[in-house]
Parts: sequence; structure tokens; C-alpha cells
Amino acid sequence: MPDLSDVIEELCLANRILSHEGVIDAFGHVSVRHPGDPNRYLLSRSRSPLLVEPDDILEFKLDSDPVKRIGVRLYAERVIHGCIYQARSDVMAVCHHHAPAVMPFCISGKPIVPVFHVGAAIGEQTPFWDQADEFGDTNLLVVKPEEGQSLARALGRHSVVLMRRHGATVIGASLKELVSRSIFLCQNAEYQMRAYLLGAPTPLRPGEIKLAGAINLMPTAAERTWEYWTARLKASGGWPPPAKAAGEPEVKPAAVSGEKKKRP
Amino acid sequence: MPDLSDVIEELCLANRILSHEGVIDAFGHVSVRHPGDPNRYLLSRSRSPLLVEPDDILEFKLDSDPVKRIGVRLYAERVIHGCIYQARSDVMAVCHHHAPAVMPFCISGKPIVPVFHVGAAIGEQTPFWDQADEFGDTNLLVVKPEEGQSLARALGRHSVVLMRRHGATVIGASLKELVSRSIFLCQNAEYQMRAYLLGAPTPLRPGEIKLAGAINLMPTAAERTWEYWTARLKASGGWPPPAKAAGEPEVKPAAVSGEKKKRP
Amino acid sequence: MPDLSDVIEELCLANRILSHEGVIDAFGHVSVRHPGDPNRYLLSRSRSPLLVEPDDILEFKLDSDPVKRIGVRLYAERVIHGCIYQARSDVMAVCHHHAPAVMPFCISGKPIVPVFHVGAAIGEQTPFWDQADEFGDTNLLVVKPEEGQSLARALGRHSVVLMRRHGATVIGASLKELVSRSIFLCQNAEYQMRAYLLGAPTPLRPGEIKLAGAINLMPTAAERTWEYWTARLKASGGWPPPAKAAGEPEVKPAAVSGEKKKRP
Amino acid sequence: MPDLSDVIEELCLANRILSHEGVIDAFGHVSVRHPGDPNRYLLSRSRSPLLVEPDDILEFKLDSDPVKRIGVRLYAERVIHGCIYQARSDVMAVCHHHAPAVMPFCISGKPIVPVFHVGAAIGEQTPFWDQADEFGDTNLLVVKPEEGQSLARALGRHSVVLMRRHGATVIGASLKELVSRSIFLCQNAEYQMRAYLLGAPTPLRPGEIKLAGAINLMPTAAERTWEYWTARLKASGGWPPPAKAAGEPEVKPAAVSGEKKKRP
Repeated sequence: MPDLSDVIEELCLANRILSHEGVIDAFGHVSVRHPGDPNRYLLSRSRSPLLVEPDDILEFKLDSDPVKRIGVRLYAERVIHGCIYQARSDVMAVCHHHAPAVMPFCISGKPIVPVFHVGAAIGEQTPFWDQADEFGDTNLLVVKPEEGQSLARALGRHSVVLMRRHGATVIGASLKELVSRSIFLCQNAEYQMRAYLLGAPTPLRPGEIKLAGAINLMPTAAERTWEYWTARLKASGGWPPPAKAAGEPEVKPAAVSGEKKKRP
Repeated sequence: MPDLSDVIEELCLANRILSHEGVIDAFGHVSVRHPGDPNRYLLSRSRSPLLVEPDDILEFKLDSDPVKRIGVRLYAERVIHGCIYQARSDVMAVCHHHAPAVMPFCISGKPIVPVFHVGAAIGEQTPFWDQADEFGDTNLLVVKPEEGQSLARALGRHSVVLMRRHGATVIGASLKELVSRSIFLCQNAEYQMRAYLLGAPTPLRPGEIKLAGAINLMPTAAERTWEYWTARLKASGGWPPPAKAAGEPEVKPAAVSGEKKKRP
Repeated sequence: MPDLSDVIEELCLANRILSHEGVIDAFGHVSVRHPGDPNRYLLSRSRSPLLVEPDDILEFKLDSDPVKRIGVRLYAERVIHGCIYQARSDVMAVCHHHAPAVMPFCISGKPIVPVFHVGAAIGEQTPFWDQADEFGDTNLLVVKPEEGQSLARALGRHSVVLMRRHGATVIGASLKELVSRSIFLCQNAEYQMRAYLLGAPTPLRPGEIKLAGAINLMPTAAERTWEYWTARLKASGGWPPPAKAAGEPEVKPAAVSGEKKKRP
Repeated sequence: MPDLSDVIEELCLANRILSHEGVIDAFGHVSVRHPGDPNRYLLSRSRSPLLVEPDDILEFKLDSDPVKRIGVRLYAERVIHGCIYQARSDVMAVCHHHAPAVMPFCISGKPIVPVFHVGAAIGEQTPFWDQADEFGDTNLLVVKPEEGQSLARALGRHSVVLMRRHGATVIGASLKELVSRSIFLCQNAEYQMRAYLLGAPTPLRPGEIKLAGAINLMPTAAERTWEYWTARLKASGGWPPPAKAAGEPEVKPAAVSGEKKKRP
């Protein structure tokens, strides 16, 4: 089992990379399944992902109740995470966002399809989920367990689900795969949209999607992207998170169970 | 009643956030109703909102005459603010701008409609006002009381009014609501415009607009956006405003009535 | 007559503002008529405008020969400036550029027309000049006197001339007017282009163009934009230009005639 | 023969400029032919070009095997470089990338043609290569010698080859020519794409392409662009690369043959 504090740090880094690369803005959230307990997941308290620090990370049960109640605000839509972890034992990380590149598709109802080799990371299909089909008029937030379950059913065995008039939810077999797929989804959507200015975009051939979908998993690709996105985040001043002043009281001393390494 | 100097500081922060987030450029302005006197409002002297400091804030009567004349240039279009505060007692803050995302709509005459849940903050309708309808050929600036009154009538009970060949004016029940709505209007307009590349955009259903319009007011949303936009502004070096050097003479010692806390 | 060194400093600032605001990139150039001699103009040696410093500024005769030959590279296209100063005694400043916002118009041959009040600064018409009409196949650079004269004729009494497959040239009655008009041209072009996504853009009415064209000259507008663009340039580290190290030899001790104040 | 360490430094600078100017992102790579041995080329180990440092540069034979095996990851697609150097003795530098501006063309299959004078640097034609034509379903990476050779054949005597659903490969007679052409290709593609919003873009006339294609080689242009792009990279903190700490062990003491000057 990986060290819990390392996973928490990687989760913070994933939050900030996805913000800095323009996938997430004030809203959106990123979670990871607990490395020591598949029936738990880790997610920040309600805070913009660009600002998430290790002390913001809380532990949740798969019904999306926090393991410990400590009086901080929680993301209203955390059932998205819990319901997907319940439905898909292979999923280790989840991101929900309203990226500018995907919104025109969510609004027009046109599917995003892989149009270049790196975009194959999104898989053959990106199913659409329209909350109104099952729940009628809502505020479009996914807050009830049955809404989260419905979304998880729409996701099915795929890696991305588009949400009508709302955004997208992306899953990964690891945090790094999730970050790559989320960024590549946006690149693919942006290029696909711009290609409509020139004529009908040509998607990858089905065989190409299968083969190119694995590029993301090649060590040369995975190491290169993570180093690159981290370096860009650091250059912007966004990493590491601000150090806690000595003697500062612990806001939430036991919000995540398991051994936490002290930060020096 | 909130402390006046806190309101002034929040107004400066609102000016700078709206500039930094790309709603406002060299032009545009942001005001707030005086917290202690509903017949007064606070607005900067003529200066780009990115640069507004507490000492720039002046107090105006609802006829848009400054309470004290102190020999600084004033925004030519301040009647926009005064006339809306007169017509709408529920309005506590006003922003006028020419955001790049809304201009294509102001030019083509196509209405902006809410196309995603966050965009519901703009309300069901964004009426259009064409200055030429009532006033014929003008320089398109809203400078006469009757022009401001005409604009306020076009705004009616709505939250946004689009101005043909000019820009937009947005109102809020508070400065924070105003800032959120102004930014969400731009996001909505940008996504709606891009959706035309893919086909006819699907707007929210009427029931969804009503329900999703309140997301903006949820504490989890309001706290998250304000912290996020402030953090981004700070990271850019745009906040806090430059400290005044010790011994620097007061430019306008009594431009705003009421008790002002000294800045340390 | 304004102090020559102040004019040179303002010219450097204009070069850098136009680069920083995205009008000019590696190419493009900005000149001003000599404040003490209408038969001379000031222009940098061949260098990207973002980097231009006072010591780069040279003095040219209206035939675009340098007053003193000092062995530095010159802009190949300086006849654009000389020929316009010859043809138009009212012109005090000239900018030639390939701004991304205007290029789609230069390529498609569609005219840029004022579509919002600030855009009225470009005037009613932006004539097109196609070098091939008179000169057949060239490398499209304007380097011969007859090419510059042809361009000046196409400009006529207007403020902007578009150059097919090349870029644009803008004039001003002062450096500040030039800078504003160049930036507003780009904003207008960008909004006009995006408006085509929504339907036919509605240009300003002829009477509006006349009236709104003067906004640029209002002191509230001119002071606000100049302070804003300068502040943005400074925040980027682009102003002031790097100080010359003590004892550093003068590269071109007498390239501009007239009294130059020493920089402290 | 130019000093090897100077060539390596210029190669690092070219890598970083192309990243900073938005041609290359996490992926993409840039090589130069060995200045002392036309049967060798220099290319970084597998790393995002924005981060490439002199110690990352390795020497390869034209079959794309490294001259010395030192246990670092290599770019999977380095045969692109080797096969082009084999096929084209006039080529001194190669760049492969997936620039956002070219992707809509690679996806729609519409050719990029020179639409403004600076864009003439790409030449009259940008041939298309579709890996599937010869190799059927692949992951679209160019990793086998026969794939690289097929791409080199498609490039032919041209300067740019577009790769269906993948990206582009650009060549130069020098590193500086390569950098300019790669950036100008992106500008040309972006303007061409936007021109479709306004109507059919007018490409340069054949005679103009020939004449304007040489602008890139004018000393005034070449010096100006290199100084400009380098200054922008420096201002971003991206140059020079981080200095190696004293006493830090050499990672790969002899990865490039020939005399290397010590960095001070």
C-alpha cells in the first residue's frame, strides 16, 4: 500500500495541475480511492481545486458521508465520486469539471469523439447523460444518491460521461491516468470543435482508437506529461502549497484515518 | 450597517477581480450602493478598474452628481449606476462593461440565453437596449439622465441588459453576487457562441433556469468563487493595492461621508 | 515643442505597449514625426518593438534615409512611414503590424467596419490595398518608394489601410491616438469576426461612427487607457527598459539630432 | 565546424522557444544534425522540450540508435528524425509537434496553404501523410523504420508534412530556420482557419510564395525573431536552464562525442 501522505500530496498536485491547465476553474473536484480501504475515498473540503492543500483532504465513505464530521463545508456534488467508486471497482480516481473546451458539446448535444492519437485516451465513446430524463427540472447539480447512481449508470464501462448543460465526469485507473485523460479530453474537444470550421472532422478509425488509447500508459508518455505539468504549475507559483506556520493549530487533526507522515 | 471602509475595500477588490478575470478592460466601471444611505452610491473616479484604490472611491447622489466636488475626472457614464439605483431598490451593486465574450452578441443582436447551470445566474432573459431607438444617432455613451433612465427601463426586472453596439450592464443584490453574475455571463456567452460551431445550442429548460439560478447564492459556491478569484488576483500581483507612502498628502480627504477606518 | 527625449521615451513606450497588448509581434514597427522638424521622423533600428530602448531610436528623412549612417540594421519597410508622412501633413505617428485579429480580414478580403462604439476610432472605412494590383508578384514587403507611395494613396484620407495577405497600417494625430486606434482596431476586428458565428454583424450607423469616433479623444478615455496599458506593461516587467550600465559605451552617440536630456 | 557545445545550447534554446511559443506541449521533439558528422544527429532523451537541458542531449546514428546506451528513456518516435536526415542531405534540423493551430487541419484533412507573406516560409504545399494508407491500424506513433521512411517519402522535397489525426513534421536548413518555420506555420494555420469564418481565404499567388518564402532568410528578419523569442522565453523564467549544483555527478558523461566546452 502506498504511503497515505504521499497519496494525499499527489491528490493535491492533481487538483492544482487540472486547475492550472484550464480543465477546472472555481468549481470542479478531484478524488482518489483510499489506498488502504477500497470502501473509502479522499476528497478536499469545499474549495477551489487550485487552492487545495493536504490539510483540506477528507475521507469519505462510499455513500459520500464524511468519516469524521469536523464542521467544514463539503462539495455538494460529492455523490458523483461515491457512486462511481461503488459502481466501478476498477476506478481509482474521479474528476468532475466544466472545462471550457467541453461545454460547447454539453450545450449542443454533439458527442466528443477521438480525433487525434492522444485523444484516444477518452475511449471510443463519451456517453451523454441528461439529468432531466430521469429527474425532470433540477438545479442540475448531482447531489442526491439516486442522481449519482443514474450518472454512474450512464458512464457505464466508459471513461468519460458528458452531462447535458452541465459539464463532464472523467475516471482513471490511477490519479495520473485521470489527469492525463482529463487534459487530453479538453485538447481533443477543442481541436474537434475547431475542425468544424474547416469541414467534417475525421475521427480515428476504431482500430486506431484501441491501439492509440494505450499511449497514455506508456512510461515515456506518463513520465513526460507529469514532469511537464508539474514544472508549469511550479513556474506559476502554484506548487508546493504554502507551508503551515510553526505553531499554527491543526484545523482538522483526524480527518483522514491512517498514518500521516509529518511534513518537514 | 457594514463598516464603510470594508465596503470600499470590497468595491476595490470587485473592480480588480472583474478586470483580472477579463470582464472589464480599460473601460467599464463597478459601483455599490452606500451601505448607510440608500440614496447614495460609491464609485471610483475615472480610472481603469484594474487600478482602483480605496482613495479613488467617491460618493454620488442618485442623480449621479458627486456629493463633494474635488476636481478629479469622473466616469462620463455614471448615470447608468444612478438611474438603476433609482429604479430598482433591490439592486445593491452595478457593473457596466464591454466584455469580449458578450460583444459578438451585442453586435449581431442575438440574445444571450442560459446554456449551462452556472449560466442560469443571468436569469431567463437578457433584454436588448438600442440607444438609437429613442435617441437616434449618439456616440453610444450613456451620459444623459434620460439615457440612463431609458436603459433602466429596458433592464426592467431582469439582471442583465445588453446594449446594442456597446456592451452590457449587470446588477446584483450584493457586490459578490454582481461579480459572480458578471463572470458567469461571460462564460455563458463564450460557450453559447462556440456551441453555434457545433449546431443549435440547447438552452436550459425554464424550470432549470429557476432552480439553477440559485446556485450562485449557495454558501459553498459563493465562498469558493470569492476565495478563488481573490487568490488569482493576488498571484498576479494585483492585490492588495499599493500602500500609500507615509506622509503622502491626502488627494481627496473627504470624498466619502461616514466613518472610515484608517488603513494601518 | 515637446522635449525630444520625452518624445523618444513615449515612442519606446508606444512600441512596447503595442507589443504587450498583442498588436505587434516580432515584426511591425511604430514611428513618430520629429517634434522639431516636420521633415523628419523617428523610428527604431531593426528590432522587435517589445525590446525597443531610447538608444535604438534613429532619425530619418522623409525619403526614409537615416540622417546619420551608423552601421546598424534598419527596418526594410520604413518607406511605409516616410511616404505617409510625406502624403499626410496631419499624421504625427504611424504603426505597421500583422495583428492576429486583422489577419483573417487581410486574407479573406472582407472589410473591417466599426461594430461597437470604441471601434468607431477606425473611421467609416478601412480601404484595402493589394500590392499585386500595381506591382505584380513581390515578396509583399513594402520596400521601394513607389510601393510606399502607392500604399499612402490607398490610405487616402482614412486612418487605417488593410494590406492584402500582409497586415495593416494605422495612423494617428499623436502617438497616444495611434496606440488607442491600433488596439481598438484589433478589438473591433476580433468582435466582428466572432459575430459572424452568430449571424450578420450590425455595424454602427453612419451618424454613430462620426460621433463615437471622437470618444478616443475625450480626456477621460485617453488618460484612462494610457494609464491602464502602461500599468499592464509595467506589471509584466516590460517597462521601464533596462538601465544602461555605467561606463557602457554609447552605441550611436548622435543618431537623433536635437537636445537629448540625460537619463539619470 | 561550429563548436559542439554551442550547437547543443542552441538546440536546448530551440526546444524551449518552440514550447514557450505554443508550438510544442508535453510531447513533440526537436533535433539538429551533428555539426561534425552528417551521419549523426542530436536529440534530447525523452523529456518535454520546455525542460530540455544540455545534459539531456544524446547523439544518435541515422538508424536512430543512440551512439552510447546509457539507460535513459528515449523518444519513441525518433525515427522521424533519423529517416528524414537519411532522405534529405539538405536538412539540418527537424521538429515534430502537435500544435493546436495545425490540429484542426490534420483532423479535417484540409491542406494548410500560405495565406500571408510570413506564412510563405512553409512553401507552396504541405503534403498529407496518412499512416493508415500503408500500415493500416496503428497507434499512430511513428516508431518503425519503415514508418519513418514512409513519412520521409511523403515529405518529399517540401518543408512541412501534415500527419492525419496526429500532427506535423517540419524541417529546416538550420535550427533557426526550423524554429521560424514552425512558428510561422502555426500563425498561418490559425489565420487561415479564422479566415473561413469570413469567407474563402485567398492564398498567396504562386509568384508571391516563391518571393516571400525568402523573407525568413533576411538577416533583419532572422535576427529580430531570434532576439524576440529568446527575450520572451527569458522573461518567463525559461532560460537559461537551471545551473547544475557544484559536485553534482554527471548523469551521462559521454553521451555526445566531440569536444564539449565546460559551462562556467
